[in-house]
Amino acid sequence: MKRRSFLKRAAIVGAAAAAGSALPAPAIAQGRMEWRMVTTWPKNFPGLGTGAELVAKLITRASGGRLRVKVYGAGEVVPAFEAMDAVAGGTVEMGHGAPYYWKGKVPAAQYFAAIPFGLTAQEQNAWLQYGGGEALADEVYGELGCVFFPSGNTGVQMGGWFNKEIGRLDDFRGLKMRMPGLGGEVVRAVGGNIVNLPGGDVSTALQSGTVDAVEWVGPYNDLALGLYKNARYYYYPGWHEPGTVLDCFINRAKFEALPADLQAIVRAANTAVNQIVLSEFIARNNTALTKLVTEHGVELRPFPAPVLSELGRISEEVVGELAAQDPLSRKVHDSITRFRRQATEWSKLSDQLYLHARRLTSAAAAAG
Amino acid sequence: MKRRSFLKRAAIVGAAAAAGSALPAPAIAQGRMEWRMVTTWPKNFPGLGTGAELVAKLITRASGGRLRVKVYGAGEVVPAFEAMDAVAGGTVEMGHGAPYYWKGKVPAAQYFAAIPFGLTAQEQNAWLQYGGGEALADEVYGELGCVFFPSGNTGVQMGGWFNKEIGRLDDFRGLKMRMPGLGGEVVRAVGGNIVNLPGGDVSTALQSGTVDAVEWVGPYNDLALGLYKNARYYYYPGWHEPGTVLDCFINRAKFEALPADLQAIVRAANTAVNQIVLSEFIARNNTALTKLVTEHGVELRPFPAPVLSELGRISEEVVGELAAQDPLSRKVHDSITRFRRQATEWSKLSDQLYLHARRLTSAAAAAG
Repeated sequence: MKRRSFLKRAAIVGAAAAAGSALPAPAIAQGRMEWRMVTTWPKNFPGLGTGAELVAKLITRASGGRLRVKVYGAGEVVPAFEAMDAVAGGTVEMGHGAPYYWKGKVPAAQYFAAIPFGLTAQEQNAWLQYGGGEALADEVYGELGCVFFPSGNTGVQMGGWFNKEIGRLDDFRGLKMRMPGLGGEVVRAVGGNIVNLPGGDVSTALQSGTVDAVEWVGPYNDLALGLYKNARYYYYPGWHEPGTVLDCFINRAKFEALPADLQAIVRAANTAVNQIVLSEFIARNNTALTKLVTEHGVELRPFPAPVLSELGRISEEVVGELAAQDPLSRKVHDSITRFRRQATEWSKLSDQLYLHARRLTSAAAAAG
Repeated sequence: MKRRSFLKRAAIVGAAAAAGSALPAPAIAQGRMEWRMVTTWPKNFPGLGTGAELVAKLITRASGGRLRVKVYGAGEVVPAFEAMDAVAGGTVEMGHGAPYYWKGKVPAAQYFAAIPFGLTAQEQNAWLQYGGGEALADEVYGELGCVFFPSGNTGVQMGGWFNKEIGRLDDFRGLKMRMPGLGGEVVRAVGGNIVNLPGGDVSTALQSGTVDAVEWVGPYNDLALGLYKNARYYYYPGWHEPGTVLDCFINRAKFEALPADLQAIVRAANTAVNQIVLSEFIARNNTALTKLVTEHGVELRPFPAPVLSELGRISEEVVGELAAQDPLSRKVHDSITRFRRQATEWSKLSDQLYLHARRLTSAAAAAG
């Protein structure tokens, strides 16, 4: 990040810094450091908050306590969406959230979360690690004064909770819906009134009628928020977020001041958690979904194919408009869409046809 | 592992130990250790050997050089399939390969690689980390005198290279084919003559006519071995290995003697590599496949649906027979098949329907 923009940003985040000042400064004694990680998640929220805790634990353990990381839930140091300011301004050293939460600061950040009809979890990881994505993330998060580590993935999400059925595209018109990122922009483009809210506020907004519909994550997380209490229909598949990356962002100067071994530990801990969080979602989504349907009477609905097809067409327009906004968005856009063309061809021959074949066989019959 | 069986195994691996004795013993000086990692892969083989190198690099870097790991290709210390003996017997500290290579020692090991019509990469990880798999791996690798870490995944493989078309199940009859693990047992059950060979010998065997057909990994690896030079048809999808786990196995006593921070580093490095290796395959398979088809004239063929369906039926029988062999296999079998029932339901609503929807949209049209 350029020095001038850093100073400018430091001023902006003054309020965040003040908000955090009641907490003790990082302790540095006998070569030991204590870092604080603020998050956009409710403290210990399943998969998301617990993923952040796992990053902290792995770093603390692997460093033999030389770098101890303490995790704070949304609102404990700063509100959820001020986490980036707190890290960029140096109030705290680390944060954990999702890249699209920072779109107001750097629009290109959204590509590092997920794009509608974009990459699955394994494709997004592949793009980041072997498709040029990491170098682009360095540029984007450099603008934010941070370094970026992919630090968890939800896998394919669900399409959201509704109190009316979605039979055609026009059913989104006038709908007040909580939906972040580019998926939200697509629903806005088809006439929805979109708001973004952190996880901790989603359930209340639906209950109070502030919104008519919500998209949060998937069965495991949505069960935890109790969204079934105030919505009847649960739609799939999550066309808007097929593999959302969680981000661990670290104040760039603080990260660069770490010795090389601690830098390697921070990096490895995040890559490990990136894999482990996805495992948690994959392992627990189906049990949660069964519970939602059998115990809470939730009605599962697939989006009709013509609706998906139209959403796909409009998604291309919306994502293309983002690319036209600024040169950095254009660069990231072109990289990720080029990668998608190749990934889609391979996924057809591999995962798509394999999953289809598995259901054709007696293994599928056993799976009922 | 029980002391008695350890002593017995130590005797068995005497030859392996002797083979390795020309190399210097691990250097321990000034609190620094040097460990040797033997592998089943040709040195630096794409994705597999480079994955092993990456584990070594991450451990060395994150430990600040306190634990340096040096990697040996197949044949450099011991032949590929003697890697486990060398580690169990303490000739070297670590190894890298694939769990089904150890089926002759502990049959249940095969479940930790892949089973035909079994779990995808993300499902296999989820089973290991959140479905009880890791505790079972502790038992199985305990029998081998080792600790186990998942350390890479190929994703869905291809179905293999043939010089005749596979139009019906009977076309496997009499075929001399290189195919490891349970997939090989299924092809044996339908009349194939199955051999297992390490990667370094696969190409020569096909060229010399020792085998008529081979299964290795997928486009990225198969291009590297030059298999297109001696086979015409390349079949998909890889029903037999939908997400094969690579294993890092460490002599249990050596691992347990490490201080807690180095244990945490070894664990985190492997989990990180587990994710990174999959990314490499996903990123590079399609480019390699395009090259195979356009530059080398390879003919892609899908297995006909009735063939897949029959292979699925026979796979259930073969995997069930393995479970009947010994109590440990039964225990692992029941855990993994129970997990598959749930995972299959979730993957249908998520990855399967999402990948289908992506191809219906204009994004898919752009993807050609």
